[in-house]
Order: sequence, then C-alpha cells, then structure tokens
Amino acid sequence: MKKLKRSARLVEMTQYLLSRPHTLISLTAFADRYQSAKSSISEDLAIIKEVFEGEGLGELHTLAGAAGGVRYIPKTDKQAALSTIQDICKQLEQPERVLAGGYLYMTDMIGQPSVMSDVGRIFATAFANRDIDVIMTVETKGIPLAYSTATFLNLPVVIVRRDNKVTEGSAVSINYVSGSNKRIQTMSLARRALKEQSRVLIIDDFMKAGGTVQGMIDLLTEFNATVAGVGVFVESGEVEIEERLLEDYVSLAKLTAVDMKTKHTTVVPGNYFYE
Amino acid sequence: MKKLKRSARLVEMTQYLLSRPHTLISLTAFADRYQSAKSSISEDLAIIKEVFEGEGLGELHTLAGAAGGVRYIPKTDKQAALSTIQDICKQLEQPERVLAGGYLYMTDMIGQPSVMSDVGRIFATAFANRDIDVIMTVETKGIPLAYSTATFLNLPVVIVRRDNKVTEGSAVSINYVSGSNKRIQTMSLARRALKEQSRVLIIDDFMKAGGTVQGMIDLLTEFNATVAGVGVFVESGEVEIEERLLEDYVSLAKLTAVDMKTKHTTVVPGNYFYE
Repeated sequence: MKKLKRSARLVEMTQYLLSRPHTLISLTAFADRYQSAKSSISEDLAIIKEVFEGEGLGELHTLAGAAGGVRYIPKTDKQAALSTIQDICKQLEQPERVLAGGYLYMTDMIGQPSVMSDVGRIFATAFANRDIDVIMTVETKGIPLAYSTATFLNLPVVIVRRDNKVTEGSAVSINYVSGSNKRIQTMSLARRALKEQSRVLIIDDFMKAGGTVQGMIDLLTEFNATVAGVGVFVESGEVEIEERLLEDYVSLAKLTAVDMKTKHTTVVPGNYFYE
Repeated sequence: MKKLKRSARLVEMTQYLLSRPHTLISLTAFADRYQSAKSSISEDLAIIKEVFEGEGLGELHTLAGAAGGVRYIPKTDKQAALSTIQDICKQLEQPERVLAGGYLYMTDMIGQPSVMSDVGRIFATAFANRDIDVIMTVETKGIPLAYSTATFLNLPVVIVRRDNKVTEGSAVSINYVSGSNKRIQTMSLARRALKEQSRVLIIDDFMKAGGTVQGMIDLLTEFNATVAGVGVFVESGEVEIEERLLEDYVSLAKLTAVDMKTKHTTVVPGNYFYE
C-alpha cells in the first residue's frame, strides 16, 4: 500500500478495523501497512477509539507491549439496543401478522439485512465475553440471524438440517419432540461440520417451549460439544412454566399475548433487558 | 451528535457510509449531523472517495446540486475478485470434498462469514447496475450468499421454502424437475413475501443443469415478477449442453471435472471472469 496522509490513513484504518471484528491486529502490521511510525499509528487508534466508543459503535481494545495490538469489539449499548428492539416490537404487533396456531409472520423482517444486522450486533454484544468456537442454528429462519451474529463475533456457522442431504456426507441425526405441538421431528448435522469439544453458541429466531433448542443441545452431546450460550430473537410467553424446557437463554423480544379473535398481540423487550 | 474535529469526523463518516451502501445521503444530512459547513463535508468526502477508490473498496458517487449527496457503491475490482476466487477454487479442489453422486462438500466454506462476505461483494459488483427490488434464494445453502449480497446492495431477501410452513400463511407452490436427477420436487413461497411486478435477483450456491433456478423463475411468473439476474457461486461443468436449462447467469466458479476413483477435482473461475 502506498504511503497515505494522516487523513487518508484514518479512513483506511477505520474500514480495515470495521471489517475485522474480534481480530487482534498488531501495531507492527499497521505500521508496515501504512509505512508509518508506531507512535503515529497509536495516535490514529486513539482518535478512532474515541469516535467508536463515543458513538456507541463498540470498543477498541489496545494491548500494550512488544506483542501489542488492537482489537475491535462491535457493540450496541443497552439503551440503543432497547430502542431498536422497541421499534421491532411495535412492528411485530401489527395485527396482520397473526397466523393460525398463534404464530407470528415475521419473515419480512428477517428478510431485511439491516434488521438482521442490528439484531446480530445486539447478540454479539450479549455474548461478547463468552468463550465460543462456533455458532449453530437450525434451518431456515435462524440462518440470517446466526450469520449476522457470526460476522460481528468473527466466528464460523454450522447449520443443522431438518433432513439429511446427500451433499453433506455422513451425518448424525436425532429425534426430538417439538415442545409446543408435541410432534416428533428429526434434525441432523454432517459429521464433519462440527469439531469435537467445540463450544457452541446456539442462535434461533423463535422459541416456544424450547424443544428445538433442546434438540440442538442434545445433538451437541453427540459431538462431545458444549453449549456456550443460547440466544433467541423472539420468545413466546404463552408457555406454561412446567412446559418450558430451557431456563438459561437470552431473548431479545417476548410475545406475551395473542388474541386470535381480535388479532391483537403484545410484544415486549426480552429478558436481555431485564438482567 | 456533538461537533467533531476533522480527524474524528473522517472516522465517523467512513463508518456511516460503509454501513449504508447504495443509499443516497444528502450533503445537508451530513452537514446537520456534524454541524459543519457543506464545503468541509465535501472536502472530507473527496478524501474518503480517494481512499475507497484507490484501495478497490468501491465507488463514492457524488451528486451535485441542491438535491446533491453521496452514495457508496461497494465493489471488488476484477483482479482482486479473481484472486479471491482462485483461492476458493484451490480449497474446493481438496480431494476429501468429493461426495457420492459427484457432489462437493462446501458447507464449511459457506459457514465462514468472511468467505460469504467476499463472495457477496463480488455478486454485488456483478449486479451493481441492474434494476433490482429483491433478492431470492432457496433454502438452505444459498441463504448466506443471498444475505451477504443483499447487505452490499441494500436490498431485502426472500427465501423460497422446500415445504410449506404453517408460520408463513398462504403460499404458492410449484413442482419442478431437478435437471440433474430428474426427480420431481416442490418449492413454495408465502403469498405475502413478494410484491407483484418485483424485479428479482436469484442467488444460489450450486447449479448443475439449472432445474432449481428454473423452478424459481417459474415461481416468479406466479407473482407477475421478473428476473433481473441469476448468480450462482459454483456451477457444475459436468452437464451436457442439451441438458442445460439456463443460459443467462453469472457463475463465480466452475467444477469442470470430478474423478470419483481418484477423488481428483478441477475447479476454475466461472463465467464472470470470461465476459
């Protein structure tokens, strides 16, 4: 890269850091990249850090010393997250979203990359300090959320299938009982998709009693893997306590009531905001 | 937002533009946001433009006049794209990827958000000048690619299902013949997922004869929607010309030969690089 003026270097460093979240970049690498003294690079990083942290974009962690460097941790502060989720709750309360069976139509919102980006960033904030190797979700609607979260956490994604596709090679399948409708279903994961001993963050779009998430947890034991966390976008509050299969999870929104006759629904911020 | 020094403003404007691709931002909006004169904002934009275009990150289109503003168009130049795809081709040629039926295991690569981001950016470059309302894909492995492309093009995504889920409301289903194995399959899309007259970019991960993509095109006619483009990550070259259902598509990589006995495969850059 050709030598840049400070103003141009700030632009370049900003885009470089933003596209490499949760990645340690050494001061030496930056100094080489920009043919600049480490002292100049440090000054630039101080400016970027002040803007990022001042605007609530996340944190810039600087490590001092010979092995020193910088790591960008994307975050959304709690107040901004609450405002984003309150806006989403309002949209989810639109009466035309109520479907047979008390489900909510939210495919259009999952179809908006900017919404997925906001939500993924909130999950990345919630799980920023966990020790995670990989993010797991089950097809189909959890996938965009899992990728958005994975992008901000710089982690790979594995997708559990509801069938066993020929293109995946040998796979492990398990049966599980969907908690809400009590039907036995199957999910499977290619043997080579997940390393043994992995620490796994489970992300899904919707949770009623938690049967699907519990199925993924059961699947993890087949791989000698462990759960590092569970994040669900919307949980249903219309579940009896004794039906709930899962206690330890983060939800961003909660569907507390669906009146099938009036099509009136109430969606409130999830447990992430009440911890 | 509090008034920032120029150096801090450059950092903030860079992140603001990067997170809003294909979006017109007026100079007035920037001037208000940073409490700065439009002339200062214009100078900042000139610096950002020079860095973005110099580093091959994309284009900054500035519109002069009272309604003037700026639009960031993320791009990957052809040479960088070729280098990215050649690296992907090399990984796809690993002999342990060959599965029964001549399929290639590529789920691990699709599971890497950084690879999806690179590939989505190349698709966004290929289709930057098309008039597109929405991106369509079919579950499961096309989804990460579709979202990545959609993020760079600032467009919504619709996901065609291989079944008809209760949570989607009324849906349109069609049968199609998978070109490679001649089996009749079903795909469906919720009636409310796609507006009539939409111009649709179809993105998928793998194409053999093109039966699945042709199915999506047939589905579009049920919504009076039209095809604005077709992009496939990897196409199989092991298809007789008379079997090929589709002519007009962009492929980024091409699987030209699979030797099931030696597990030797050859993957080369796709037609995007030979136009």
